[in-house]
Amino acid sequence: MTTREECQDLDARDPLAGLRDEFVLTPGEIYLDGNSLGPVSHGVQRRVSEVIDREWAQGLVRSWNAAKWMEAPLSLGDRVAPLIGARAGEVLVADTLTFLLAKIIGGSLELRPERHVIITDAVNFHSDLYIVAAMARLVGRDIVVKTIDRDTLDEHLDEDVALVMLTHVDFRTGEMLDMSRITRAVHEVGALMLWDFAHSTGAVPLDVTSADVDFAAGCGYKYLNGGPGAPAFMYVAPRWQGVLRNPLPGWLGHARPFDFESTYESAPGMRAYVTSSPSVIALGALGGALEVFERTTMDAIRTKSLALTDLFIELVEEALPGVFELATPRAHDKRGSQVALRHPNGYGIIQALIERGVTGDFRAPDICRFGFAPLYLRYVDVYDAVQILADVMLSCAHLDAKYALRLAVT
Amino acid sequence: MTTREECQDLDARDPLAGLRDEFVLTPGEIYLDGNSLGPVSHGVQRRVSEVIDREWAQGLVRSWNAAKWMEAPLSLGDRVAPLIGARAGEVLVADTLTFLLAKIIGGSLELRPERHVIITDAVNFHSDLYIVAAMARLVGRDIVVKTIDRDTLDEHLDEDVALVMLTHVDFRTGEMLDMSRITRAVHEVGALMLWDFAHSTGAVPLDVTSADVDFAAGCGYKYLNGGPGAPAFMYVAPRWQGVLRNPLPGWLGHARPFDFESTYESAPGMRAYVTSSPSVIALGALGGALEVFERTTMDAIRTKSLALTDLFIELVEEALPGVFELATPRAHDKRGSQVALRHPNGYGIIQALIERGVTGDFRAPDICRFGFAPLYLRYVDVYDAVQILADVMLSCAHLDAKYALRLAVT
Repeated sequence: MTTREECQDLDARDPLAGLRDEFVLTPGEIYLDGNSLGPVSHGVQRRVSEVIDREWAQGLVRSWNAAKWMEAPLSLGDRVAPLIGARAGEVLVADTLTFLLAKIIGGSLELRPERHVIITDAVNFHSDLYIVAAMARLVGRDIVVKTIDRDTLDEHLDEDVALVMLTHVDFRTGEMLDMSRITRAVHEVGALMLWDFAHSTGAVPLDVTSADVDFAAGCGYKYLNGGPGAPAFMYVAPRWQGVLRNPLPGWLGHARPFDFESTYESAPGMRAYVTSSPSVIALGALGGALEVFERTTMDAIRTKSLALTDLFIELVEEALPGVFELATPRAHDKRGSQVALRHPNGYGIIQALIERGVTGDFRAPDICRFGFAPLYLRYVDVYDAVQILADVMLSCAHLDAKYALRLAVT
Repeated sequence: MTTREECQDLDARDPLAGLRDEFVLTPGEIYLDGNSLGPVSHGVQRRVSEVIDREWAQGLVRSWNAAKWMEAPLSLGDRVAPLIGARAGEVLVADTLTFLLAKIIGGSLELRPERHVIITDAVNFHSDLYIVAAMARLVGRDIVVKTIDRDTLDEHLDEDVALVMLTHVDFRTGEMLDMSRITRAVHEVGALMLWDFAHSTGAVPLDVTSADVDFAAGCGYKYLNGGPGAPAFMYVAPRWQGVLRNPLPGWLGHARPFDFESTYESAPGMRAYVTSSPSVIALGALGGALEVFERTTMDAIRTKSLALTDLFIELVEEALPGVFELATPRAHDKRGSQVALRHPNGYGIIQALIERGVTGDFRAPDICRFGFAPLYLRYVDVYDAVQILADVMLSCAHLDAKYALRLAVT
């Protein structure tokens, strides 16, 4: 079994170790919930204060130009692009994930007007299920949303499928899907592929270009650490830019916004998908949060992420053999950056851990979910978390029912 | 002609004078563009820092509950409510104005399934025109959007009209419409009424209850001073809550969001119209900005607003007789909180004013637009602004073409 000293040694040799200082962390807390809400970084504090105290306070309305606020959704998109294997001009930061999915779903259906089926995963995140059903209903024509077992996708693919929408890393189990293989299969029947990267971006390397993805979207508040309810991002492959229409347009996506024309004419490129004035403060927070990613690579993050999740699985199985069912795949190529442990008393376990300074979260019916963010987590944190988990289980602390209901966001 | 001394005297007796200290203003600048982007207040700085440095940094994901982030769209809505004559539980703060309009338009069309017409104003703000056309197109069934001369509204009202959407204060001219009379006329033919309060909220008293309005929406970054791209708000009359469906739903609007059910079931009340996790930082800024409104009343704001715009019109006409055409109505009951002056060299005039520290904005083809925000503007500011305007006109500074293109948001 790996010892605490060995973990300290791993930390001493960790090339990402210096980045931990960029975060505002609470002493004594081991935060394994960055897959729900990432922590504050000094970049966020700096950039938000710059936006409010300098650009807004001093520049006022002039900052839309002078501080390049008008460009922020695109320039931030260019900074998210390398994290998903996209190039400059292919990513937009705006709105929220659900609205961006709505735009892509609505636009996609027009690109396949003769087809009637959207396929998604029955265990997809709920907002994804709700918005795809809502858009299918809204567009009026006869669209069927098939929510399937994703492992049976190939059986459902035929020439009536307009769009397949899947989440790349499962929010409950942390299973990661094969983006290239699935996208290829979807394209073989002439359908379009939309990937939700909510639990992938900033956690695992992504390559939308080599996987030939049509559309993708992800959120800014999980592994990107952009703050609660941070703006989301969307990717549109160059071949679809100027072709995929924005079904929810606004004046800032107009080709000539300041000509105030009565009829909408889409701007070229990703600007077409801008609807409204973005929250510049929220964009500032996300921009500040991206700074730390610009000091490393997704490959370095992935290497440490796998080491952390491997270590956690190893230590849990050694300290508590047979206590949990591992819901997360062991194979590296099928694992995101979280570990999910099933236990019938999962809710009580998470509450007891939180009481002892280890923050994970619970997902009904029986999943204890632990996210491992390599930018600020140490190997000793993993070691200590497992010791505390073992203590909780052996002292039966999780059977104490007197914990307040805890809510967390995805 | 009112003298500068008389203006100083008006300031000395101004019951709102003390509120100016709540704002971060640049010495020497007279800011007449708060109808585009309001300035920073100390409340914003305090509240954003509280959200980032305490609630997010220390509370992390727990703050969704512990700091009541989950309730923020509704609790902020309850604070906007008194500004529009609504009651607690009738207003939601979320998203952007265009998305909220999309929700209301999409939902409204389902409430009048046998009707085919939406009426709006041909000179409505462009995002409003784009989103109403987009929603009419998106819903599939045969919907015609009639963009009319609003003065001829009565001629267009018949039993095929599903929805009338008007902006209460014209963004160019500052003309204010008669909300009660128009709403009554729209109801007489069984249509629904949606008001856009972008240029009204925080500037003029509103009473959606006595005017029997069905739906309204407005933005947070103009007179409310909530920051660039601040979240917007929507009002749904109690009779439509639970009836108007949210056509763009998300998990936070579900009746039981943490049960993660596959099928959407709307939460009761205004929560039904929540789609995604809100940007808590952006909501924090708006919340901080509302504090100053809670120290006065909309009636006191209106009294000073009319005095400021009256004074501006009087001084301009006396200093520069016949130079401008007044686009804003003189009648108090037809005027918002801005004054629009038409001039063929309007663009150059605004540029020359900005160079001299008076910030207004230009709206094509010929409108110089000046917004008067009573919370931080003084009577002497109005006096000095007119002196500088007179100096610009008499020195022909506005004919100098060497000004950079200036963009501003609505």
